[in-house]
Amino acid sequence: MKSDIPQLMADRDLDAIVVYGSTDTSSDLAYLTGGAHLERALYLHSRRGQPVLFASVLERENAEATGISTRLWNDYPLSRYLKEAGGDVMTAQIAQWREIFRDYAIQGRVGFYGLIDMGYAYRFLTALNQALPQIEVVGETPPTLFSTARETKDAREIENMRAVGKATTDVIANVFDFLSGHRAQDGVLIKPDGQPLTIGDVKAFIRLEVVKRNLEETHENIFSQGRDAGVPHNAGRYDMPLRTGETIIFDIFPRDRATGYFHDITRTFFLGYAPDHLAEKWLDVKRVFDEVMAEIRVGEPGGKYQQMTCDLFEMLNYPTICTDPQTTVGYIHSLGHGVGLDIHEGPRLSTFGQQVPLKPGHVVSVEPGLYYPDDGWGVRIEDTIAFGEGGDRINLSDFPYEMVIPLAKT
Amino acid sequence: MKSDIPQLMADRDLDAIVVYGSTDTSSDLAYLTGGAHLERALYLHSRRGQPVLFASVLERENAEATGISTRLWNDYPLSRYLKEAGGDVMTAQIAQWREIFRDYAIQGRVGFYGLIDMGYAYRFLTALNQALPQIEVVGETPPTLFSTARETKDAREIENMRAVGKATTDVIANVFDFLSGHRAQDGVLIKPDGQPLTIGDVKAFIRLEVVKRNLEETHENIFSQGRDAGVPHNAGRYDMPLRTGETIIFDIFPRDRATGYFHDITRTFFLGYAPDHLAEKWLDVKRVFDEVMAEIRVGEPGGKYQQMTCDLFEMLNYPTICTDPQTTVGYIHSLGHGVGLDIHEGPRLSTFGQQVPLKPGHVVSVEPGLYYPDDGWGVRIEDTIAFGEGGDRINLSDFPYEMVIPLAKT
Repeated sequence: MKSDIPQLMADRDLDAIVVYGSTDTSSDLAYLTGGAHLERALYLHSRRGQPVLFASVLERENAEATGISTRLWNDYPLSRYLKEAGGDVMTAQIAQWREIFRDYAIQGRVGFYGLIDMGYAYRFLTALNQALPQIEVVGETPPTLFSTARETKDAREIENMRAVGKATTDVIANVFDFLSGHRAQDGVLIKPDGQPLTIGDVKAFIRLEVVKRNLEETHENIFSQGRDAGVPHNAGRYDMPLRTGETIIFDIFPRDRATGYFHDITRTFFLGYAPDHLAEKWLDVKRVFDEVMAEIRVGEPGGKYQQMTCDLFEMLNYPTICTDPQTTVGYIHSLGHGVGLDIHEGPRLSTFGQQVPLKPGHVVSVEPGLYYPDDGWGVRIEDTIAFGEGGDRINLSDFPYEMVIPLAKT
Repeated sequence: MKSDIPQLMADRDLDAIVVYGSTDTSSDLAYLTGGAHLERALYLHSRRGQPVLFASVLERENAEATGISTRLWNDYPLSRYLKEAGGDVMTAQIAQWREIFRDYAIQGRVGFYGLIDMGYAYRFLTALNQALPQIEVVGETPPTLFSTARETKDAREIENMRAVGKATTDVIANVFDFLSGHRAQDGVLIKPDGQPLTIGDVKAFIRLEVVKRNLEETHENIFSQGRDAGVPHNAGRYDMPLRTGETIIFDIFPRDRATGYFHDITRTFFLGYAPDHLAEKWLDVKRVFDEVMAEIRVGEPGGKYQQMTCDLFEMLNYPTICTDPQTTVGYIHSLGHGVGLDIHEGPRLSTFGQQVPLKPGHVVSVEPGLYYPDDGWGVRIEDTIAFGEGGDRINLSDFPYEMVIPLAKT
């Protein structure tokens, strides 16, 4: 959590940290500035001083509202440095940062964070490292200071995440009511005007439900049917009519515009009825989901639950990426991921990468699934859970698991 | 435009380009992949070969739908490289890329693009440059290959931008109708239920209008009144009731979810009536706007029009950043910016930076404004214009400039 940052700096022997970019794309910057909109900002924090935030005069008040001591780029006007540099952007930026670093006594090991163009980052930081002998540019490999701080949520963050979970499940409830208000004819859902109800129609309904709750979808939700449900990130085809008796995966992961936090939840369901051979697959996934949810706890590494999921699916005779990393059918992804200001962050519930134990404040998705596009189906069930201060598990996706959504009588 | 890329590679003596990241945050990658949703993708293009796109198995079909030859990360499974690297992410990624570069014969000068963490980019590309002696890592300072390609739109892009312009002005028309359906009482707009109409109410209405047209707001629109209008990026306070006779800046810049292109337009208006002293300011900005719009043409550098705008405002006795870079009142920003897959891209209509002439295919905002927060007002008027193949100016923001929005009778 944020209060860990001084210790995380000390652990890495960092004398200062620099976070640069736009709050739109750089979630580390959004984390520090608490949802302020800043297009080109620089956050400087020396271990010996207070943090300072550079912002454009256009965004002065957004910056000031963060409570961080604010300076304006205009106090170090790029136009002046550009003139001195004969128009060369990088030379000008180095001259500008040299003066800022001097005025804020930035020296020693300096960690750099924030999303920018990778080629420019390489060139700029190489040049900065040469131009400022008093600093050593430090780039981190994951887990970074920020991924580590962010993966543990404090009580206020958990409350924010509870709120976005509630709003998201309200959307799902209304979508299910909307669907069950339709009748089927020859296996296709029909609108009041007699036309087939398409995935595009449902997506339009979802969009309104999302926006009414001040949520936003940074990528489109997944509402995929039949063989498309067999390809995990297939978002669904707009012109496809909804059919009875097929697997429909509805995976929605909106962000709360007010707080910036995401929620992630998936339900798989059938409209009208579930054919036996597919109901069996749904129940297999649900069984694995339930077993993992019964076991998952703080103190154990996330990778343990990915292995457990693979073992359970293999016991049920499905292929998994644990034994065949190149399989494209069966269980083909990791069990889950941290959720927060990014939809995918730490900790990971996967066999590789970070193997640190789950702990209080972690918020993760749990989402086992099976995928068989050529057989026309896919099933995934997902909740997002948090671990409270005492290690108690809080399900942020408080919503039933219905296999079949009944339809209106014809 | 995209067809310029081979020539732009040759100009830079690049043997290959690499674009890496998520299509969400890396608009260069979105440009190449045409709106596909890809969370971690790698685009490789050697001058001697065809481009290839690496994607996750989860997003296989999204990648294939781009028409670019697609490979799966699973063919070079990170789990294997991680095991070999003892869990070190960067070492594993270098081993993975070494094999990919070898298989696709990537060598010589290689340009790297795409948004990633700046510290990791520095560390990773420094290590890659050392580990792969057959390549030279090249990072560009702006204008980069992609900023250059993207600032010139082809006919299809202009059509996409015309469509998002039309949808955006439809939103504004409905917002104005909504506002003028209200009556005022003691200088405050009143809802049918007798409560004051707030900026929050208007924002809720805007959100629905936006989503109905399959637009999205990556940042919130600006709907700011009185002194808040005097701070350019102040988005407006939700709890503030709308008042008659104050400047209201409405700046909306949504993205078309279907194509990914933005539009940018601003109107400043008064509800009910305009007090004389503020009407005068509105007319001053409109006069500058009109004079610039009458002059702006291909063949001249963008900076010329920023200078012209400053000269005009100074003739009217307003301070400008051209003569005082640190002024916080008067005309305090640049005249405009390119608009495309980013809301702010090249070419810039500003005194510094790129001074290349405007040309056919350029799409820019033109947005003079004046800001006096302590005097309780701000005015900005903005259209987005394109230059057609013959240099003809196409106004993509086809919407009237109304100073006063009349209100319903009490």
